[in-house]
Order: sequence, then structure tokens, then C-alpha cells
Amino acid sequence: MPEIRHNIITRQWVIIATERARRPDQFAREGALEVELPARVPICPFCPGNEDKTPAEKFRDPASGAWRVRVVPNKFAALSSEGQLVRMNVGIKRTISGVGQHEVIIETPDHSQTLARMEEAEVERVLRAFLARYHAVLADERVEAVTLFKNHGAAAGTSIEHPHSQLIGTPVIPSEVLERLETALTFYDDSGDCLFCATLNEELDEGTRVVVEGEHFAAFMPFAALSPFHLWIFPKRHSASFGNIEPAELTDLARVLRALLGKLHKGLGNPDYNFTIRTAPKESDRVKYYHWYMSVIPRVTRMAGFELGSGMFINTALPEESARFLRGVEPD
Amino acid sequence: MPEIRHNIITRQWVIIATERARRPDQFAREGALEVELPARVPICPFCPGNEDKTPAEKFRDPASGAWRVRVVPNKFAALSSEGQLVRMNVGIKRTISGVGQHEVIIETPDHSQTLARMEEAEVERVLRAFLARYHAVLADERVEAVTLFKNHGAAAGTSIEHPHSQLIGTPVIPSEVLERLETALTFYDDSGDCLFCATLNEELDEGTRVVVEGEHFAAFMPFAALSPFHLWIFPKRHSASFGNIEPAELTDLARVLRALLGKLHKGLGNPDYNFTIRTAPKESDRVKYYHWYMSVIPRVTRMAGFELGSGMFINTALPEESARFLRGVEPD
Repeated sequence: MPEIRHNIITRQWVIIATERARRPDQFAREGALEVELPARVPICPFCPGNEDKTPAEKFRDPASGAWRVRVVPNKFAALSSEGQLVRMNVGIKRTISGVGQHEVIIETPDHSQTLARMEEAEVERVLRAFLARYHAVLADERVEAVTLFKNHGAAAGTSIEHPHSQLIGTPVIPSEVLERLETALTFYDDSGDCLFCATLNEELDEGTRVVVEGEHFAAFMPFAALSPFHLWIFPKRHSASFGNIEPAELTDLARVLRALLGKLHKGLGNPDYNFTIRTAPKESDRVKYYHWYMSVIPRVTRMAGFELGSGMFINTALPEESARFLRGVEPD
Repeated sequence: MPEIRHNIITRQWVIIATERARRPDQFAREGALEVELPARVPICPFCPGNEDKTPAEKFRDPASGAWRVRVVPNKFAALSSEGQLVRMNVGIKRTISGVGQHEVIIETPDHSQTLARMEEAEVERVLRAFLARYHAVLADERVEAVTLFKNHGAAAGTSIEHPHSQLIGTPVIPSEVLERLETALTFYDDSGDCLFCATLNEELDEGTRVVVEGEHFAAFMPFAALSPFHLWIFPKRHSASFGNIEPAELTDLARVLRALLGKLHKGLGNPDYNFTIRTAPKESDRVKYYHWYMSVIPRVTRMAGFELGSGMFINTALPEESARFLRGVEPD
């Protein structure tokens, strides 16, 4: 008998389709680990030597000499960094001018590298760039919220192979962030607790869905994971915003993220994936009821009409089995 | 300057990325119209002669003789049609036994056919099967809501080529249906109007995003379409549920749907697409504040990390331009 599980944070019901379920290793991509990219590609705009092919740098680390991480405005920005925020209402329609920030974090000079195989210290350097740009972009008075995300591989929507993440600062609160805030506020009002702290405590007590646990962060499969290998990384200390992360926490997050991506890379054959940092918008960055987190979504299956039409998901993997499988994978 | 539009029905903000926009014909798939499938495939479980490869028939039209439309339980059902509805709560976790109905509507005996090229009368026959099974499944007392949907093509999640749609009856209200109900109820309470009637009236007045208009239905691009060629078909008469459709309306819906799919097929080179019927759940099927509709989603682009991470969308096509393009396409 399949099981329908409730995701208390996203408010979604998920069908855990046990009858159709596949073994964890059946989601792996074959032969993908044998593909090696060149360390430098002459026409790649993100490779060293081609710095003039990107808009002017916003950040570099180290500040002088050969860079290890570089942040530049997106050449094909979804939002314009120039111009005024103007709201217009016509009838029931609402429009805002498309102003904001859209940046690219180039994670390494090495075209062939990937976060899943980088040194922890290099992953930490990337996260420090995230944090620096997060604060810089949020300081733009037109920006209300910042979304940090990564698209790895074609199925995850990448068009450029060179390892990179992106940051978009929007003049509005994205709808899913708003929904999470509303859900969390209602839970807080009902119970006096942070919904995310309560979830994390249950996960750590139960342990069956935990994949990597560090001093300050834990990575686990949600009880009602929306898709196979859908993972969350929660900070253990209550905090509404990624912007409030402490240096020791950043080091631990790099360790947990590197271990998790390493396990996915090895266990699932370098799957395409997205990750995102879901953090509170500017005006709610210290609230007791919201808790920032990372979501990692391997793109091993596709959303079809049922998911698009209902918002209900069918997951063909049992989260407990997927978690056990990943715990057993030793990353390179 | 890009524009950020608010989708008042889905509550989502959509970046209409004019700087990155492509011309409508640039979304077309090349060479796809020249591919012809065989009319019958010996190993296809949905082709005539292989009726014993599917579970026992739930519906057929005509009732005797060679069938034109056939409905069978899904052999790999996401939910079990047997068993009792049991709810369990452990800590903050909620689970329901995975009971419900999952059926397949085989739209034609002809493997090579597609709704986009079928006679209107045959499309109407498919819609009549939808309606008959909608009522039959909703009569299951464990079922609270029915989702009807179609996956056309690999990018839309089909594994079987033979033209078919699906129906899933769930013992819970899918989250997006619940959200639409909440949004519509709030609008109704604020204004006294149906949000969908108000939207349709504005679209018909303005006209720029309308693609096909029939006597009882209108197909248009939402002002804040979430993706290129995202389309809605609204009934003109206020009605919360697809289940309340009148015979003359069904005929008109077949005409509008056939025209719309025909235009997409010809204009975009047989794109992969999903459609879904978003209808009120069982207990709300006569309410004044909700209005059923169809959503058609060509899968010409991919959701990436920003969309998954924020619920905010980047649309690289201008809805008014896409609508004008489709209005000009003469389907075969």
C-alpha cells in the first residue's frame, strides 16, 4: 500500500509510491563519472584569461593575484540593476518595474572542477562569496529578498558548464518564501515553537533520514520528500537569515555541503541538481518563527502533469532507504 | 527594462525577461512535424488487439463494437484502489494510507494520432470520458478531489507514446488546489466577485492575450504567464466544478481545446506539453468563489534553481506576442 505523507513545511501531500519504487542505485546515471572535462576551455567566459568577457567584477577572492572565486553581474540579467522601482496597478493587474540584481558566482578557475570534489576550504571560500554578495545586494534599497541558487547540469537548467552559482535580488518577496513565512507564522502562533526547529529535532531524534550531521548543520531527507533524493540542510541554531551565519558555522556548512554533494556525486553518478538557500526577506531577518535552510534537489525524475496540475507529488523512492543508501556512500 | 507581473490567481510574481526574450517562432521544435508514428504498434498495451494487457476496462465508447475511447486502471497506479482510508499522526508528522483511484484514458485506437489533429467530435468523445470517470471516481467516498491531466512527450513526463490522459482521485485536497481556493475565497470576501470571472472579463475586454474564443470558453495567455506559451482555458459561465459542465459547453470546449492544441502543434512543431483540469474538490463543487479551468503548459523551457528555490518565475516570452503569434497560426 502506498503512503501519503504530509510535508508540514511546504504544506504539500506527497504520495510515496512504494509499488512503483525503485532501489536507490537505480537512480544513478551510468558512465557519468568517467567523463572528464578539460581544466580550461578557451571560449569559456568564466575561465581565467577571459575575464574581459564578463561584466566588471563585483568581488574576487583573493583580492589580488590569481582569483579562486569571482563574482560578476549576469551578462543576461533577468532584472535590471539600473532604474527606479515603480509599481503600477491597472484593473486587477499589478506590475513592478523589473529592477534588482542578478549575479554569477564563479566557484573556481578550474573548468573541470565541481563542488562535490573540491577541498572543503574551497567550498567555504564559495560560501563566503555568497555571504558577502548577499549582504551587498540586500543593501540595495530596492531589493526585498535575495535568492541564492545553483543549476548543475542540463536537466537542472545550466547553459554554461563552468562551475557557478547565481544570486538574484528581487524587489518583491518570491511567492514560495512568502508561503513558508505564512505557514511558519501560523505554526508559531499555534505552538510557540519554530516549525523548523521542531522538524529538525524530530529528524535528529529519529535519525533514519539523516545523511550528514555536523556540529552546526544537519543534512536530511524530508519525511515527505517531494522527489527522490530531495534533501534539506538545516542550521541547528535558530536563525531566520543566512545573513546571520557565524564564521564557525560557515566552516561547518562547507563541510556538510561538501560531504553531501560528494555522496550524491559518487552514489548517483554526478547527477544534475539544483540547490537553493531559502532565507527570510529583508524585513523578517530576525524573526523567531522563520528559520533559513538549504534545499538540494537532484533532477533524477521529471515533474509531469499531475505535479504541475495539483501541486501534489509522487515520489518513487522511500526517503529512509535513500538516506541509508547515501549514508553508506564514501565520497572521493 | 524587464517587467515583473503579478499573477493574481497563483499569487506568483513573474519576471517577463524582455532583455532575454526570444521571438515566438524560436520556441518551435524543428523537424518534429515530419516524424510520423505507425498507426498500430504490436507491443503497445494501448493499441487495439492488446486489450488484455491492461487491467479490466472501466469505460468504453462506443459501448459495443470497436472502441474509440477506453478507460482502464493504471497498471502502475500511484494509489491503491483497495483498502481503507487511515490517518496517522506521530509527533508533527501526518500520514494517510495511499488509497484512491488512478486511471488511464486511452484517447484513440490510433497510435499515430494526437488530440491536436483529431476531429472535434473525437476530442469531445475524450472529454465525455473525462466527465463520466470524473463522476464515477468522485463517488468513491474515500476520494476528496480529482485531478485530470495529460503528459504529451518525454519532456512532459510520458513513458507511453500512445495518446492518453490520466485521472487521479486523491483522499486529500492537493496543495495547489487548496491554495487557489484560499486565494479565491479571500478575493470574494474582499470584492464580492469571483476572481476568475473578473480575470476573464478583463482578458476579453483587453483582447491582446486571447488566442481562441468559443461560445462558452475562452483560451488566453495569463497576464503573468509563468512560462512561454502557458495558457488557460476558462468557462465563461461561472461554475466551480468541471463536473457541472453542460452538454453544449462540452462541445464548445472540445472545439476550443482542439483549436488551441492544433495551433500549438503547428506553430511550435508538436511541442511536449501538459494539460490539467483544475476543478474544485468534492465539498466545494458549487461555491460562488471558485471557478474551474484548464491549464495548458508547453514544456519549451525548463524550471531551474531560481524557480525551484523561490517560486518566482522568469518568462522569456512576452505573453501578448505569443498570443498574437498563435492567433495567426492556422491549425491543420
